[in-house]
Amino acid sequence: MTANDPIASLISLLSRLPGIGERTAARLTFYILEGEAQYADALGRSLSTIHAEVARCELCGNYGAESRCAICQDPRRDESLICVVAKVPDLIALESLGSFRGRYHVLHGLLAPLDGIGPDQLPLDALERRIASEHVKEVIVATPLNVEGEATALYVADALASTPVQVSRIAAGVPHGGELEFTDQVTLSRALEDRRAVR
Amino acid sequence: MTANDPIASLISLLSRLPGIGERTAARLTFYILEGEAQYADALGRSLSTIHAEVARCELCGNYGAESRCAICQDPRRDESLICVVAKVPDLIALESLGSFRGRYHVLHGLLAPLDGIGPDQLPLDALERRIASEHVKEVIVATPLNVEGEATALYVADALASTPVQVSRIAAGVPHGGELEFTDQVTLSRALEDRRAVR
Repeated sequence: MTANDPIASLISLLSRLPGIGERTAARLTFYILEGEAQYADALGRSLSTIHAEVARCELCGNYGAESRCAICQDPRRDESLICVVAKVPDLIALESLGSFRGRYHVLHGLLAPLDGIGPDQLPLDALERRIASEHVKEVIVATPLNVEGEATALYVADALASTPVQVSRIAAGVPHGGELEFTDQVTLSRALEDRRAVR
Repeated sequence: MTANDPIASLISLLSRLPGIGERTAARLTFYILEGEAQYADALGRSLSTIHAEVARCELCGNYGAESRCAICQDPRRDESLICVVAKVPDLIALESLGSFRGRYHVLHGLLAPLDGIGPDQLPLDALERRIASEHVKEVIVATPLNVEGEATALYVADALASTPVQVSRIAAGVPHGGELEFTDQVTLSRALEDRRAVR
């Protein structure tokens, strides 16, 4: 045996990260060992404390330093519009547009019965409470355009059927720069079906 | 701003790892945040303590829990044979053969004048001391077959010229399963040059 326990244990912990196999984990471990102890320590402390230092916004589920995230605290955001997303990186992608002025509701997951994720695991009660207490007029469901995202969108629309809000779904269609020739059949038929009048 | 400081700081620390860009670092950070705090904490502690828990063998430079690594402590290893490698993963690859019964000397680097790594950064004094004090008959230089590895091999051979040991270099040639048609010219001419008699 050449690798002693701490090395094997770090390799095994790193290889639990998505997209990082045993070989990459070993490469990273030896990189860290050859590098400065200061860096390993800084990375280690950042990981050990991240859960304690980052809170989920009690309203929308976005990450923040306080119990309400920066977006929910911002009085300039439009209270009447809530965009439902599956995860925080999707919220960040939408924020990077700089054009959406409403607020968000982060599900931190999608319906996936095979993985044991049912409606009860999604914060839809919280969404209904927000609709009852805030001046919400429209809920845009921006879950992804895959099977789980579509199923979740349908479920959200159903769950809000008895509320007075308008529920909308982001458009499905051919992406910008997309050649029809190389577009998959589902996308193409959605683009035809959801065609919009130009004059 | 949606990502607060601890998130940005973890992304920035992770993106300093080799092969991990900003996007992957962000993906890993959100994976860690969505996952259990226990895992993040275990990974963090493993990283913070790895430098303190892993020592470099005072003889050969291999990693170990004590001041002498398991290989140098093993009385069954052949004292007369030392294999010089650039880094610990190379030692592990050689050990996995199960056939090399000598010991190692880990350089933890290769000559790379452009990166400011000169002969003084390599533990060649330590190698010479081992040759003087142990019963070493042969030093096999198993640095990689690239420019830095070859330059380092030449330098090691020169540095040991005044010692009585035999210095050898691992063979260069066409790898197992290699088609001559697709073998690069340098490898092919080395394979011709270093041909061995079969009868």
